[in-house]
Amino acid sequence: MTSPRIVVHPRHPRSVGEAFLAEEDLDVVIPDADDLIEALVGAEILVSFLWEDRYLTDSLRWIQSVSVGVDQFPVADLEASGVALTSARGCHGPQVSEHAFALLLALTRGVGRSMRNAEAHIWKPIPGTELGGSTLGVLGLGTIGEEIARKAVAWGMTVVGTKSRPDEYDGVASAVFAPDATIEVFRVSDAVISVLPDTPATRGIVTDECLGAMDGGWFVNVGRGTAVSEQDLLDALASGALAGAGLDVFDPEPLPATSPLWSHPRVVMTSHTAGLSPHYGSRLVAIFRANLAASNGHGEWVNRIV
Amino acid sequence: MTSPRIVVHPRHPRSVGEAFLAEEDLDVVIPDADDLIEALVGAEILVSFLWEDRYLTDSLRWIQSVSVGVDQFPVADLEASGVALTSARGCHGPQVSEHAFALLLALTRGVGRSMRNAEAHIWKPIPGTELGGSTLGVLGLGTIGEEIARKAVAWGMTVVGTKSRPDEYDGVASAVFAPDATIEVFRVSDAVISVLPDTPATRGIVTDECLGAMDGGWFVNVGRGTAVSEQDLLDALASGALAGAGLDVFDPEPLPATSPLWSHPRVVMTSHTAGLSPHYGSRLVAIFRANLAASNGHGEWVNRIV
Repeated sequence: MTSPRIVVHPRHPRSVGEAFLAEEDLDVVIPDADDLIEALVGAEILVSFLWEDRYLTDSLRWIQSVSVGVDQFPVADLEASGVALTSARGCHGPQVSEHAFALLLALTRGVGRSMRNAEAHIWKPIPGTELGGSTLGVLGLGTIGEEIARKAVAWGMTVVGTKSRPDEYDGVASAVFAPDATIEVFRVSDAVISVLPDTPATRGIVTDECLGAMDGGWFVNVGRGTAVSEQDLLDALASGALAGAGLDVFDPEPLPATSPLWSHPRVVMTSHTAGLSPHYGSRLVAIFRANLAASNGHGEWVNRIV
Repeated sequence: MTSPRIVVHPRHPRSVGEAFLAEEDLDVVIPDADDLIEALVGAEILVSFLWEDRYLTDSLRWIQSVSVGVDQFPVADLEASGVALTSARGCHGPQVSEHAFALLLALTRGVGRSMRNAEAHIWKPIPGTELGGSTLGVLGLGTIGEEIARKAVAWGMTVVGTKSRPDEYDGVASAVFAPDATIEVFRVSDAVISVLPDTPATRGIVTDECLGAMDGGWFVNVGRGTAVSEQDLLDALASGALAGAGLDVFDPEPLPATSPLWSHPRVVMTSHTAGLSPHYGSRLVAIFRANLAASNGHGEWVNRIV
């Protein structure tokens, strides 16, 4: 069987291009950005997390998104044109869940403060706390959130959380609230991790009241920075409601040089890297392979949107 | 039943004193250091991790150690005097295992390097790797080491390790070597965590050959700094055999201000805090309570040495 022409968008996360090029039986092209439109002429498949309307050529029949969210794609237009769209759901759980715990443990075990001291060559024992036996709140119990929940339960934590449709939840969390009851998660949790995407519904969902419902708690954000305002975080750190914040995402990004978060002794931060993994590409190729087979009538589609 | 007089040594880890004083039915005394010997007159029980021979009063019948190791106590003399000695084994597993992962994840997810950048207000994405699917070596598969192994297996890692008597091992590790085959652990592991105590047998057991057997691996030490030389660590970081080192313990301590480890971009460090936990005291009291009952003929002794 001849492979259809597959165009991989030149802008993609590390490891994606390599993983597709390693599939030697596939007709994969990764054009330069300037040659992208030309490369798409006659191509049946596009692998991309970016979209422009001119990508919709007559030959295109399927888009494999490199992202979980597919808001950037014209879903209705694609459906009307008979072009399939599949998401990358399932590629992020392992690394994002480990990153969330990296930030949380850096807070609870004093690694962040110790690293600030190390830069100044200061030996100072920072007393740590324990996650085992504590309660973790997960905002957004989807694929990634559930992976965080599973890791937490395996380490002896109790998990609660939020989900758009709590009645459809089927996982390890003990209690699941609707998004409009997000504050309930903060009331009962020792630590809260947000994996929420940026949507109109999630912007500012972590209010000052939510943070104020904690008493020396930990907050970690590996979703999007728009879920909480920087000022609310700083106020909650100042009041003691938050013992510490572990942040991979900010609003805006890059974090402005003037932000007080950079030097706050109880803030641990990374530069939006929770999703980075050397295994991202191979997981995406596995989804792609399943969908390629499905497109030829073998097996089921994975993550099909339209 | 009247409580025997219990003297808690005034030098003890955070939370131990509070935990004993909270037991209102017990006759607990925590004297000032100057009054310790006087307080021991007529006391039957000493809770301590320090020892001087003058503590051995005629009334003493049992010492509950606050440490796992009991080398500081004159075990043969105590046995000859009919004084029981029990260790604190089991108090450290939860916090030390979480601390080990805090250091390891700070390496694998770039938190350490990001914190050094944060101090300079530099936004710079550091690509991370994944622990899931990798192999972890644990040097010292005792109570603490096994807790690390269980947490690793629960997160999808394969575990190998060392133990003084490998044939007696009964845990989750896939392969267990004797200490003289420590290099085998480094050969097959992506990351190695040492929980080894300081004994003549463990000093320098992590040789330059061991570290050189890795290829971009991670090394974490939450045992004692004497297991590996600082120069060997620095050489392995320079050669690339080590991608990073996460260190809670050093030789000597405090780490001298002149050490290159403080500012090494691929070193993450804390100031010997892996054992600190707000729950340490309550776990020790639970062991103490079991032993107090056993001393009155109810149930079994826990961690009895003599």
